Amino acid sequence: MKNENKAQIRVWTPDDIEAVHTLIVELAIYEREPNAVINTPELMRRDGFGTHPLFGCFVAEKNGRIVGMAIYYMRYSTWKGRCLYLEDIVITASERRTGLGEALFEAVRAEAKVRECTMMQWAVLDWNEPGVNFYKKIDGVVFEPEWVTCKLFF
Amino acid sequence: MKNENKAQIRVWTPDDIEAVHTLIVELAIYEREPNAVINTPELMRRDGFGTHPLFGCFVAEKNGRIVGMAIYYMRYSTWKGRCLYLEDIVITASERRTGLGEALFEAVRAEAKVRECTMMQWAVLDWNEPGVNFYKKIDGVVFEPEWVTCKLFF
Repeated sequence: MKNENKAQIRVWTPDDIEAVHTLIVELAIYEREPNAVINTPELMRRDGFGTHPLFGCFVAEKNGRIVGMAIYYMRYSTWKGRCLYLEDIVITASERRTGLGEALFEAVRAEAKVRECTMMQWAVLDWNEPGVNFYKKIDGVVFEPEWVTCKLFF
Repeated sequence: MKNENKAQIRVWTPDDIEAVHTLIVELAIYEREPNAVINTPELMRRDGFGTHPLFGCFVAEKNGRIVGMAIYYMRYSTWKGRCLYLEDIVITASERRTGLGEALFEAVRAEAKVRECTMMQWAVLDWNEPGVNFYKKIDGVVFEPEWVTCKLFF
């Protein structure tokens, strides 16, 4: 008998692009920047598939619906060499606190090991208390608040 | 007549790997983590060349010697799509304050535009006053200290 309440974690396909983009917009609203998303489903198709995808994505699927996603890419550290950067984990509001974040994090961590990365890295907003607490529970995580992010938009 | 005091900015080649690695070690000493470099010239050759290089590098050459470098890679922002991440600019101690940092920064900025990036991003240590001041002088730079870097080493 099929367990309809259990989410499945899997690598995304082009059929998931629209749903993943919807989660990205949901995240932007949560992070208080609803107008910051200039990325589109079309651009995600261009950059996320083909022979040299710029990023990878895992999705959490439940009852045929995409309820969570994790996006990552390969970064390059001058000191540590090949690393994985976890860009975002997003779980739709109704499915939070059900273990999906942990499951997606573990899928990304396993991917980093498959790709022979020396570490994985990500960032969390200092006022995002649930996010900070989520990462504090993971064994061995190092927080480095002394690094200040700088951006130049074109 | 050749101007021997003028540095040239150019894309690196495999012949520059050893010199670039030496600058990386010099940076680690400056950033108070002399033992943090586990990257090697061999790994840089594997990851920086071939059909799918993980990163790119510009070097500053003066009188046949590599006196500076900038390493970057493509990052992927869920909100902004394709972005360039400037991983490090390093100028050897004797050649600082001569404009090489600015020249390397501009080479990377131009590369970001060629690659149709929507922005470029980097990070600076909050106690690195010369670094912070260097970036403050660049028009339009946004500092985002609310993002806390998190790392998990394998």
